[in-house]
Amino acid sequence: MKAEILRGGEMVVDDVPDPVPGEGQVLVQTKACGICGSDLHAAKHADRMVEMTKDAVESAGGGATSMFGFDTGRDLVMGHEFAAEVLEVGPGAAGVSQGQTVVSLPVVADQRGIHAVGYSNDYPGGYAERMLLSAGICLPVPNGLDTVHAALTEPMAVGLHAVNRSEIAPGTAALVFGAGPVGLAVIAALRMKGIEPIVAADFSARRRELATTMGADEVIDPREEPAIDAWRRVDGRHPLVIFEAVGVPGVIDQAMRAAPSQTQIMVVGVCMETDHMQPFMGITKELTVKFSMAYDPMEFASTLQSIADGELDVDPLVTGTVGIDDVPQAFADLANPDAHAKIVVQP
Amino acid sequence: MKAEILRGGEMVVDDVPDPVPGEGQVLVQTKACGICGSDLHAAKHADRMVEMTKDAVESAGGGATSMFGFDTGRDLVMGHEFAAEVLEVGPGAAGVSQGQTVVSLPVVADQRGIHAVGYSNDYPGGYAERMLLSAGICLPVPNGLDTVHAALTEPMAVGLHAVNRSEIAPGTAALVFGAGPVGLAVIAALRMKGIEPIVAADFSARRRELATTMGADEVIDPREEPAIDAWRRVDGRHPLVIFEAVGVPGVIDQAMRAAPSQTQIMVVGVCMETDHMQPFMGITKELTVKFSMAYDPMEFASTLQSIADGELDVDPLVTGTVGIDDVPQAFADLANPDAHAKIVVQP
Repeated sequence: MKAEILRGGEMVVDDVPDPVPGEGQVLVQTKACGICGSDLHAAKHADRMVEMTKDAVESAGGGATSMFGFDTGRDLVMGHEFAAEVLEVGPGAAGVSQGQTVVSLPVVADQRGIHAVGYSNDYPGGYAERMLLSAGICLPVPNGLDTVHAALTEPMAVGLHAVNRSEIAPGTAALVFGAGPVGLAVIAALRMKGIEPIVAADFSARRRELATTMGADEVIDPREEPAIDAWRRVDGRHPLVIFEAVGVPGVIDQAMRAAPSQTQIMVVGVCMETDHMQPFMGITKELTVKFSMAYDPMEFASTLQSIADGELDVDPLVTGTVGIDDVPQAFADLANPDAHAKIVVQP
Repeated sequence: MKAEILRGGEMVVDDVPDPVPGEGQVLVQTKACGICGSDLHAAKHADRMVEMTKDAVESAGGGATSMFGFDTGRDLVMGHEFAAEVLEVGPGAAGVSQGQTVVSLPVVADQRGIHAVGYSNDYPGGYAERMLLSAGICLPVPNGLDTVHAALTEPMAVGLHAVNRSEIAPGTAALVFGAGPVGLAVIAALRMKGIEPIVAADFSARRRELATTMGADEVIDPREEPAIDAWRRVDGRHPLVIFEAVGVPGVIDQAMRAAPSQTQIMVVGVCMETDHMQPFMGITKELTVKFSMAYDPMEFASTLQSIADGELDVDPLVTGTVGIDDVPQAFADLANPDAHAKIVVQP
């Protein structure tokens, strides 16, 4: 089958072996798969990503992170934000049937363990025509929801998880640094939770516009007004959670410097470089810096339901669709924040 | 009156004006005053401390930190861990009487606001013969408790606050990096809360011995065994809170690298330099880094009660007592962790 492959640091289109469903697995046809910032990062810095993940896994004492190791010397088909149609139900697989449209957490199990779909050498991700999924965790897409929108379940669940993990509740304000796909998912989740005001900061006019669409009450260009000043202007009296959704060095430090006393900073932007900060800022203001990753299965399922119910309108986030051949160009296009939020691949 | 003064970056003994109690204040005779690591830091880096505090205060939006500014060009009498005897009850002051032994949060109020006793140019701290305190927040020392022990209320309350702020409860293990006065106070508070195991790491044999005395179940020299390995050896199955009580650059990063998934790192050691970390470690393991400072009035009062009741034995922490003239030598002696934990000044 045809796939977009990360091979020796290059993105190439080539054929890979047709996947055959094993015990408990289903073969699906990829209908839509969003391009994630992590994929852009992996395409450029796969070695570093694998090395850092290995370090983290070893120190974590196992757990969910242990599935993310892959061999950068072998082909990798990425893509973990997908919706797909069931083509074939494998031996012992139950709960889904042929022809059904499904989404799934991007993991698949076999006798060797659990593998990250999109970051495994053995299981191709959504930048391929077909994938293998575990039947037991596939979720049928309800309400005839379009597959492009269903594919946004995964990135939107990331925002919901960060918001849940912050334990923010009405009466607390939110300041979101960065309105890329992660920041926008956070804003949408904050809006669904009834948080106000939601103040968002981004350098890109297009992204600020999307932030407003997704539910931000106030958006600012940090070149014109510091984000914290904007929050003080429109609120300044509630407790505050700052969501760091930029993921470049220096932003956590900025958030710690800007934060009022007792503020929680929720880091959801993925920074893979060494970063700096002033512990004294944290101490004198008794800050809390929490880090958030991914989501749990309930958050994933509830996000799908919110999208299917129309409570969460993800349509504005989809700024482009491409075929497999155009993935490299899409990767390049995503470097321009004014042009795109989410590009969805339709193999 | 005689005082140990920080003057132009030097510690000198000289006379300062006799304090006169204002409205609501009491004049007290300092009986005992512990030397705190922050004082050692201020004696060396007062300008930087004031500048960083100013930055923090401005960004904090006011609050408790706003009282810590002082003018490094003027005399400063430090000392904020004190017990004292009431000499004179000022106008309108109530609740304490002459001859009573008291401790107090190291703050004093007047018509201009609240001042940090020990970090104010206007109110001398405990390295002087006499001080002014606010009658309303003085706590009588119960049970005839010795003033040297009563003076340890303040540093021990710092440990209690960090432990309270972590929300640790039985069923969760604790790993304490650093067994200086702050780490030892944390260990004592963990013990009172029934936490086990408590694993403590310090390079100094003397401090490891004190850690055991204060309640650590296992102590290790990190040159011989990584602290996290010691915890895995003696426990390794409970959730974990890591208390960072070292306060030098790199230790937060070490804690983040060592931590298992979902670990909370409570930073209570005061690092006044720029520090570094790997956000990716925080993200993949969903760590929480909380910063802790000082204590609240209830924690202060309950610490005094614990010491007076004998529940908290602080005697082992007092490794020396000196007069005002010997404070500079005591500052020098405290640089050797194998020689001292807490030196108490008896003016």
